Amino acid sequence: MIVNSEQAGEIQAQRKAIQSTRRVISDGLEDILYEAQPVLDHGFVRVIDYLGNDSSIVQAARVSYGSGTKKARGDEGLIRYLMRHRHSTPFEMCEIKLHVKLPIFVARQWIRHRTANVNEYSARYSILDREFYIPEAATLAAQSTSNAQGRDEILPENEAKAVISYLKSHSEASYDGYKKMLADEGKLGLARELARMNLPANIYTQWYWKIDLHNLFRFISLRADTHAQYEIRAYADVIGQLTKRWVPIAWRAFSDYETGGAHLSAAQTKCVKAMLMGTEINQENSGMSPREWNEFKDLLNISESV
Amino acid sequence: MIVNSEQAGEIQAQRKAIQSTRRVISDGLEDILYEAQPVLDHGFVRVIDYLGNDSSIVQAARVSYGSGTKKARGDEGLIRYLMRHRHSTPFEMCEIKLHVKLPIFVARQWIRHRTANVNEYSARYSILDREFYIPEAATLAAQSTSNAQGRDEILPENEAKAVISYLKSHSEASYDGYKKMLADEGKLGLARELARMNLPANIYTQWYWKIDLHNLFRFISLRADTHAQYEIRAYADVIGQLTKRWVPIAWRAFSDYETGGAHLSAAQTKCVKAMLMGTEINQENSGMSPREWNEFKDLLNISESV
Amino acid sequence: MIVNSEQAGEIQAQRKAIQSTRRVISDGLEDILYEAQPVLDHGFVRVIDYLGNDSSIVQAARVSYGSGTKKARGDEGLIRYLMRHRHSTPFEMCEIKLHVKLPIFVARQWIRHRTANVNEYSARYSILDREFYIPEAATLAAQSTSNAQGRDEILPENEAKAVISYLKSHSEASYDGYKKMLADEGKLGLARELARMNLPANIYTQWYWKIDLHNLFRFISLRADTHAQYEIRAYADVIGQLTKRWVPIAWRAFSDYETGGAHLSAAQTKCVKAMLMGTEINQENSGMSPREWNEFKDLLNISESV
Amino acid sequence: MIVNSEQAGEIQAQRKAIQSTRRVISDGLEDILYEAQPVLDHGFVRVIDYLGNDSSIVQAARVSYGSGTKKARGDEGLIRYLMRHRHSTPFEMCEIKLHVKLPIFVARQWIRHRTANVNEYSARYSILDREFYIPEAATLAAQSTSNAQGRDEILPENEAKAVISYLKSHSEASYDGYKKMLADEGKLGLARELARMNLPANIYTQWYWKIDLHNLFRFISLRADTHAQYEIRAYADVIGQLTKRWVPIAWRAFSDYETGGAHLSAAQTKCVKAMLMGTEINQENSGMSPREWNEFKDLLNISESV
Repeated sequence: MIVNSEQAGEIQAQRKAIQSTRRVISDGLEDILYEAQPVLDHGFVRVIDYLGNDSSIVQAARVSYGSGTKKARGDEGLIRYLMRHRHSTPFEMCEIKLHVKLPIFVARQWIRHRTANVNEYSARYSILDREFYIPEAATLAAQSTSNAQGRDEILPENEAKAVISYLKSHSEASYDGYKKMLADEGKLGLARELARMNLPANIYTQWYWKIDLHNLFRFISLRADTHAQYEIRAYADVIGQLTKRWVPIAWRAFSDYETGGAHLSAAQTKCVKAMLMGTEINQENSGMSPREWNEFKDLLNISESV
Repeated sequence: MIVNSEQAGEIQAQRKAIQSTRRVISDGLEDILYEAQPVLDHGFVRVIDYLGNDSSIVQAARVSYGSGTKKARGDEGLIRYLMRHRHSTPFEMCEIKLHVKLPIFVARQWIRHRTANVNEYSARYSILDREFYIPEAATLAAQSTSNAQGRDEILPENEAKAVISYLKSHSEASYDGYKKMLADEGKLGLARELARMNLPANIYTQWYWKIDLHNLFRFISLRADTHAQYEIRAYADVIGQLTKRWVPIAWRAFSDYETGGAHLSAAQTKCVKAMLMGTEINQENSGMSPREWNEFKDLLNISESV
Repeated sequence: MIVNSEQAGEIQAQRKAIQSTRRVISDGLEDILYEAQPVLDHGFVRVIDYLGNDSSIVQAARVSYGSGTKKARGDEGLIRYLMRHRHSTPFEMCEIKLHVKLPIFVARQWIRHRTANVNEYSARYSILDREFYIPEAATLAAQSTSNAQGRDEILPENEAKAVISYLKSHSEASYDGYKKMLADEGKLGLARELARMNLPANIYTQWYWKIDLHNLFRFISLRADTHAQYEIRAYADVIGQLTKRWVPIAWRAFSDYETGGAHLSAAQTKCVKAMLMGTEINQENSGMSPREWNEFKDLLNISESV
Repeated sequence: MIVNSEQAGEIQAQRKAIQSTRRVISDGLEDILYEAQPVLDHGFVRVIDYLGNDSSIVQAARVSYGSGTKKARGDEGLIRYLMRHRHSTPFEMCEIKLHVKLPIFVARQWIRHRTANVNEYSARYSILDREFYIPEAATLAAQSTSNAQGRDEILPENEAKAVISYLKSHSEASYDGYKKMLADEGKLGLARELARMNLPANIYTQWYWKIDLHNLFRFISLRADTHAQYEIRAYADVIGQLTKRWVPIAWRAFSDYETGGAHLSAAQTKCVKAMLMGTEINQENSGMSPREWNEFKDLLNISESV
């Protein structure tokens, strides 16, 4: 359960309140506004509000007096041109506000994206809920030996079981200690801002997060990437699907030119040119380090015998 | 005339398109959405879009599941508390997008507010219109002798007339030169990005500008201030009135705690305390420089004999 | 012990390497460069590098070709004028880089200051040290009843002892669990990015943090304030002393005009004016809420009978 | 002449003042510190101060207690890894401060880079110098027909001459008008903040500009690009050479992975893979628009017959 019944009621009440507006709307987001999209075991992402849609990008790029859109085809062409040539400011003219529930260790990665507005639930003011992220066995993996920042082989079943069992009991015990520090029969009890310090990084927190579309694309590009930790990737993927609903044309351009493409280094560009001319290239004559060469082969599906 | 008839038609068309939304709305802004509010002789400010209203501030501060509002009285109290204690993040949860037409020398001051999104009309791509800011006689003043960055005594009528006449003819001649460089019978014509370089700083440009409420308050606080140049103050004042329409409760708190109040230095605070205890204070025993003492007297309406 | 002997050796080696430079220097910072200033039980702040000094503020304000300084008296006057009139950009022309070791719950408040550069020790890549913040009994206090975000009465000795004893054993047990998940005889071991999730918020992390002087003043103003949590205030106070060493003139202006002064609301300003004219003011005729009235009395040492 | 003799004297005086410091230095920048590097006809870029060097990048990435460097080879490898994998924060740990003299129309493009600190010479406070950018004939070109934002064919000699002659006389006449509005025998004279409004966009202004290395790379990447206007490119090129002096290893990584490389879209990546497998690809079966196909051919030197 990601929201309790009282919260579900508040969400339903807000979904039912329909208003009239002169502003542009996004049908894709109106459909799911306020609804909690589940992520991990207790987390969610909810779209709370938004400003603008695909037409707002072209309207700003043209500094228009009216809606800014011409023919649908021309609009899409312009959006793709802007994306391809790194004209970021028109994409900044759309804004989205999310309510996110997430483990603290994910929040600590997320907050590094500075060009965004954040209001986090205050554990100085309020008492945190007894909700902890406990990974599924299938996501418990050993340290990667090739990538010092990642994970690799999945743990064998008995190891995974032991980890999960430990995390569960440790989380519960930590929360019991937290509550006991806060208040205990006949005692004064510790201030909230201090008592929280024993809580582990897998406890859930929540915040309101607001960001413009250009910086949201940066967030998704970095956090839905295979180098990002699985847990934040789970949020980035869900937010990607919400973004697709919001601004389908911009999303397509982003997928085609950013995340779906490939960035070649100077040496790699030179090698591709040579290979297209028929020259045989291997690591030795490529000008790349072995590590870069391997990344290159993966990127372009190159077998060693090319 | 600040918009031509074609532009007025586009604005009317957009005002007529009413949509349904689940988002919160601001009645005060819906009323005037897209309409051009005149500023200076040819400038304007138009609200193009907005996100959130007063209730969004309390909703974010409470990290709510529902609308976030409780009793109206509690909401206002919370907003005032947040403003008084410099909790800026809940105010960042509201966003507004404006279309502004303004002289280039005003744009150059305005752009210094970096925490905002901007899309300016491109004079590399398009040809600028023949519209220049020509001040009214009543605003033409001499250099201030007390404040090196300001103006002071109004120019006598004949001087003002001469300035206005010169600015008009210089503006027209500059524009003629611009058009001639761009294209002339039988000539290739200069690229737009180059031809614009002869245009003076009083020509109008325009942009889309998007900013959150906290940073908008900073903009208004600095640019509606008496130390700001009259021309940008004219814009800040109009935007202030739009902000009042948008978030009337937050506006009241801002007026009470920010712009309407006074900031005392350490020495000034000490003097007020002493004066309230009955001690006579003058510049000599105040610990203030003569300049600071004068600012202090003005601030609190203190006559020298206190 | 806040740094181990190997770290102390590295610090000493760097302190001994003296170079020649054409850049301006700050004698106050050169004296203590790289040295660890202790904060809390295991934390520290070290100045790693800096750019500019007091003279850089006036040099930028004057957009100078040379050093920018005139008479020392004129420089101080200009810096005070800039501070008093909220000219923030010249203060942005100085920059400082710190190495900070701090508990995670302090890091989570600190990171909210977005206009700064941060590089944190990566627990995806490295294994965290066994170091936890354990508060002293004198800082353990109960939840404040008047200020929902603060602490109040100090805990009685037996309660404090119990809390400290629990935090110590919980920290040690958590760290043991962390190490066991990472590696255990005959087991594959969990990836670092996952194993860290059981570690509590009082474990120490560290980062490099770089910020300009204007934003540093904002940080100090908010975090050395009495409303800030004691633990981050301890860091802000130490950083304040380092800032005083770095830019003594700017620090004096900041103390006089920002932290040492008082901000009056519109109602409070009106009351001070009336009181200076001899009118008796109390909460009823002040136009302030009881809460604001109490803040006002504290601010100006006003007894009820005024 | 880009600096007058008084300014040259101030620069020399500052170059002669050598100090001792414990900070890391960049020999490449010390050599040319404060010296004016000429750009365009009257502009310049001067390095005023800097913080950090190549070693600071690895020191921050490792959150080191000492200098942070290991073997030179390992350092370069780490810097290249960070650049390749978009780890931007370690590059933010270096900072540079420049004094720049530049035409106003260039300043208006430049200022759009918001993550930087700026202090501009104030024409509210001071009187601007009689210095205007007059382009050389070889840079005067017609509007591009293929790229709506650029220039193309060089103007014929007689057209270029006419443009230059007009710009010169218009600049002089504008400046005469400016001086006359400011002060004229027996008149009060107009305030500076108003008088400046007739000055054209090719007049020179100047500012202090401070930025971190990551954002500097972004600036160079966008402004030294062939799509940028020639005049700002001239500045970006000079700043690129200064950056190479400052952080030679990071510069090499930037050149190899950013500016020297190529970004392929999803369709382009697919085509390269297919072509390397021997499939013949043309615009029709490429999945690209004609425009994107042409960009692709240019990128990889592909002849139509591939």
